[in-house]
Amino acid sequence: MSTPLSGITVIDLSHVLAGPYCTMVLSDLGARVIKVEQPDVGDDTRHFPPFRAGESAYFAAINRGKESIALNLKDDADRALFEQMLPKADILVENFRPGVMERLGYGWDDLHARFPHLIYGAVSGFGHTGPEAMKPAYDMVVQARSGLMSITGEANREPVRVGASVGDIVGGMFLAQGVTAALYERVQSGLGRKVDVAMLDGQLAILEHAIAITNETGDSPKRSGARHPSITPFETFHAKNGLFVIAAGNDVLFGRMCEALGLDAMKSDPRFITNAARCKHVKILKRMIEMVTLEQKKKHWIGLLEAAGVPCGPIQNVAKAMADPQIQARNMVVELAAPGGGKPFLAAGNPIKISGMDDTLKDARAPTLDGDRQAILDWLDEG
Amino acid sequence: MSTPLSGITVIDLSHVLAGPYCTMVLSDLGARVIKVEQPDVGDDTRHFPPFRAGESAYFAAINRGKESIALNLKDDADRALFEQMLPKADILVENFRPGVMERLGYGWDDLHARFPHLIYGAVSGFGHTGPEAMKPAYDMVVQARSGLMSITGEANREPVRVGASVGDIVGGMFLAQGVTAALYERVQSGLGRKVDVAMLDGQLAILEHAIAITNETGDSPKRSGARHPSITPFETFHAKNGLFVIAAGNDVLFGRMCEALGLDAMKSDPRFITNAARCKHVKILKRMIEMVTLEQKKKHWIGLLEAAGVPCGPIQNVAKAMADPQIQARNMVVELAAPGGGKPFLAAGNPIKISGMDDTLKDARAPTLDGDRQAILDWLDEG
Repeated sequence: MSTPLSGITVIDLSHVLAGPYCTMVLSDLGARVIKVEQPDVGDDTRHFPPFRAGESAYFAAINRGKESIALNLKDDADRALFEQMLPKADILVENFRPGVMERLGYGWDDLHARFPHLIYGAVSGFGHTGPEAMKPAYDMVVQARSGLMSITGEANREPVRVGASVGDIVGGMFLAQGVTAALYERVQSGLGRKVDVAMLDGQLAILEHAIAITNETGDSPKRSGARHPSITPFETFHAKNGLFVIAAGNDVLFGRMCEALGLDAMKSDPRFITNAARCKHVKILKRMIEMVTLEQKKKHWIGLLEAAGVPCGPIQNVAKAMADPQIQARNMVVELAAPGGGKPFLAAGNPIKISGMDDTLKDARAPTLDGDRQAILDWLDEG
Repeated sequence: MSTPLSGITVIDLSHVLAGPYCTMVLSDLGARVIKVEQPDVGDDTRHFPPFRAGESAYFAAINRGKESIALNLKDDADRALFEQMLPKADILVENFRPGVMERLGYGWDDLHARFPHLIYGAVSGFGHTGPEAMKPAYDMVVQARSGLMSITGEANREPVRVGASVGDIVGGMFLAQGVTAALYERVQSGLGRKVDVAMLDGQLAILEHAIAITNETGDSPKRSGARHPSITPFETFHAKNGLFVIAAGNDVLFGRMCEALGLDAMKSDPRFITNAARCKHVKILKRMIEMVTLEQKKKHWIGLLEAAGVPCGPIQNVAKAMADPQIQARNMVVELAAPGGGKPFLAAGNPIKISGMDDTLKDARAPTLDGDRQAILDWLDEG
């Protein structure tokens, strides 16, 4: 069975993370992605550590399965080549500052007039509209401005950044969603659309509960450390040898947790009888639970609680997560051939598992700069 | 111009967050989503605070634009009705524990045999395969197990939860991406596919850099508070009246930042001449910058740095973010009609802006439980 996006060609002018993450998702689903890079330097992330034999492991992960051609879009000969690519492409993706594509003569209006079938996907810090469209942004700027940082971190301490670059990645994911929907629509309409995603908007869109709370109560939610702000118990607990997580999200699960921990009386204690009551008495509840959990190791409690059907688990570092049998069984750590040969790079796999689709990414090597020029020229010669 | 997924019908058996977030994305892009809910109780989030006139603001945000019918899939009459819906639907979405749909007689194998055109989308804690497929999970369990919590929080303090429910939401987004790609493929093949997304896999997929670092160095990344682990300066700084963010992600931006702060000599200081050098001397660099920034208010520095083209910005709480002119200009805070009437609920808008598509969600009211039964029966009667 083929991959769902096989036959689709993406011209990828994007660099660093938000745009390349979008085209990685499309590539993992079978699209052909042609990365158009600056001659000599290429994508900035080719120069991001860690390196192996001069190749960036970071670049390799995000650009797996893509092809590369080096073109200077200010050079006439390179522009002529680029113009041959446009009628054969389905989607163009870019993450320049707004206005850059217009100055190159490849803004949406121009492209849509000349290549009406082409879908145009852009991800930028603040989007292509609004008073601050032209300002530069990086991941952390949008994490901070959106409110996400204000709810991440410990109470009464400074806000922290989410450890993953969710500013870029969430923006890239929404762009992939938008261009794929536009692709579906184009089957009927024959017309491409422009999809304009702002990283800042993407951060707002994942706040969910926080906006409802702010609007209804008049107060912005505070930081709550390792605890869910409105479900109890839903946080970290100390065992004899460190922290683990219990997420007993409703009364039934709370009851099962009490039984599993040998705290049967807690179930009918009026302080803990509903989630609202448990939230009110969260500090004393945590201490009553930890008086028990501190007596045994994490593994003991996780086994016991899992057997009782209570959601719980370890807090793993990245190395432990990569070796996790469930994650391994799902092909979520894949080997990518290093461009220079030798030991493969490891990267996160494709989380979208589709019946009949191979998800091992076994041929998804990242390209060397300009490494696919001849194959691309041959494809253009096919007419 | 129509919305890209108009004409598509989604049967939504999902509840709480991961599944409903997926169908919200599809609905925002124009799909018709029919929410099949348990009679009498409905989706759990109908009972999640905050409430207004008995209606949950949380439910309203995530279920905007959807229809509702109450069906007990263990009741024969209700099953008969459900069976009439299946041939008319394009996509079915569920987020039960693996095995639940099989026990109802609606597992993928059965459905695919009887309704080969139907796309089946499932999001669960650990996915439908692997040794721990059957275990229960909530957001925090996958944030903890994936390694995301291990890199979020302050150095030398306990890990924290990401303030937004990215365990659920990222899983829901990958599912929306998968079913939309399957929809595109179905135009040619005529066949539906099963899309199986694990929340745990989704968290791995957003770690990006952390996996490369772990594999190449042998060490898992540590928590780095409000600082990017490998770019400097890329963190929070103290001004006279509080914290703000500077993200000077490369040498050019660093030079501009030095000039804007009146620290020209810093540009050519050998301790700060490359990103690698700046990372090594990050503590002293921060102090040198704060010696200047502490003298004036945040607004002063943000204006100055923005004028110099240096990415920077405020750390806003959720109320401030909701009132942000850029966010307002992008329709990223929308008004949703409350089911009982009266003042509308506020919610995050659709971050996927598509040319010619209205993104105000102005008719996207959340359904009352079973509130669309008659309209759905009429649609089934159309044959």
